[in-house]
Amino acid sequence: MTEPSPPEFIGFAHRLADRAGAIALEHFRAPLDVERKGDRSPVTIADRSAEEALRAMVAETYPGHGVVGEEFGPYQPDAEFVWVFDPIDGTRAFVSGNPQFGNLLALLQGGVPVLGVINMPAQQERWLGARGRGVQHRDPSGARPVQVRACPRLEQAIFRTHVLVLNEPEVFRRVHGSVGDTLFGGDCFAFAQIASGWLDIVIDAGLGTFDYLPLVNVVEEAGGRITDWLGAPLSLESEGRVLAVGDPALLAQAVDLLAA
Amino acid sequence: MTEPSPPEFIGFAHRLADRAGAIALEHFRAPLDVERKGDRSPVTIADRSAEEALRAMVAETYPGHGVVGEEFGPYQPDAEFVWVFDPIDGTRAFVSGNPQFGNLLALLQGGVPVLGVINMPAQQERWLGARGRGVQHRDPSGARPVQVRACPRLEQAIFRTHVLVLNEPEVFRRVHGSVGDTLFGGDCFAFAQIASGWLDIVIDAGLGTFDYLPLVNVVEEAGGRITDWLGAPLSLESEGRVLAVGDPALLAQAVDLLAA
Repeated sequence: MTEPSPPEFIGFAHRLADRAGAIALEHFRAPLDVERKGDRSPVTIADRSAEEALRAMVAETYPGHGVVGEEFGPYQPDAEFVWVFDPIDGTRAFVSGNPQFGNLLALLQGGVPVLGVINMPAQQERWLGARGRGVQHRDPSGARPVQVRACPRLEQAIFRTHVLVLNEPEVFRRVHGSVGDTLFGGDCFAFAQIASGWLDIVIDAGLGTFDYLPLVNVVEEAGGRITDWLGAPLSLESEGRVLAVGDPALLAQAVDLLAA
Repeated sequence: MTEPSPPEFIGFAHRLADRAGAIALEHFRAPLDVERKGDRSPVTIADRSAEEALRAMVAETYPGHGVVGEEFGPYQPDAEFVWVFDPIDGTRAFVSGNPQFGNLLALLQGGVPVLGVINMPAQQERWLGARGRGVQHRDPSGARPVQVRACPRLEQAIFRTHVLVLNEPEVFRRVHGSVGDTLFGGDCFAFAQIASGWLDIVIDAGLGTFDYLPLVNVVEEAGGRITDWLGAPLSLESEGRVLAVGDPALLAQAVDLLAA
């Protein structure tokens, strides 16, 4: 078995993120045709162009690797190394001129996430987590390692959620009544906030594989935990119920609250 | 009566916004003591320092003008010209490392808003609306006039709200069921999205005077409408129920929906 997430994959992941970010910014705040999927979520040429570009880069550089993306079918999904792409996470933000969208990518080795990137091109910042190597936050001022913050008690935790209030209103009310404060929105950026020690807990429902696999190493390599609502690890087979905490002491409290 | 919002006041408003933005950025993502007010909303030294700096600039440049701000008491509130400051709108975003906070300021003449600024320093952009002079959007690439977009039918409108889902859940559900799509969060930025033609309707409750007076000229000078939930103009005496639409044709539909 190859060493997990060797440096060459980290450099390649940065190049993939650079490309996806550049394509997204070409279309950001420009006139766009917006199609709506079944759940009314929008998709644009920017999503498709970015994913096509990333697929071509993988095929050229690592022809033995697989690719799983949000917009097109799987390619060699049984390869040892598989790249996972959500070319634009937060497309609702993207199509409404809101910089709070991201390009997400993960590298799986034997089905296990070993590298994840949250790239926020309009905010000019990026988080990259690699197994055993921590999380690096880059912005125009430089790059630095980041860590979650301590917050051992749920009643003091700052909580953020995106669609829980629509998908699971009862759960939303229970959580909102148990935490220190509630923030809305954010998509992938909320998980970057956890990694940087700016936020304590994110609970959401209805996320796709492409949405959550890239988050795993960003949250966990910064010292946090990301699981399903039962506290089990996320995988390609997980349902879309995601729980992320900065302080690991919050995990059991949150799982108990979600099971109540 | 002086001509409304003469150019010297526009230049001064830009200097106020520059100063408030610089103070906010000094404290953004830095360790901060966060106090919580009665509604759990946070306040920091950044809010207070920014407002003190703006008050000092007004006192030095226009000693006859009044000032009303969120953090300190009113000064000469009966003057012909009164400046209104919310030094950091979106303090919850600010204290969680989220760039989506703004510095808000308005100039009232005889109690009527004649100039408004939404400054988003971490996003490096600003909207300034002045009565009879339109709205200018500035970012590092330059400055340009902006306009709302056409969207005459509520069922196609993209709706954004911040706290409605907590403060008025029944109203939230009614609106969510009547519009094309729903987005969460945003504070003052949602109103800038309306002015730029990226969003169609914002409905919120519980806003303070300092939150909504600076929005008036940004929305209306771009061609939109901003009122209370009955469709009446916002003033110093308005309650905190705010309705903003890009396409004026949406106003009556939204007022009917809110009264249902």
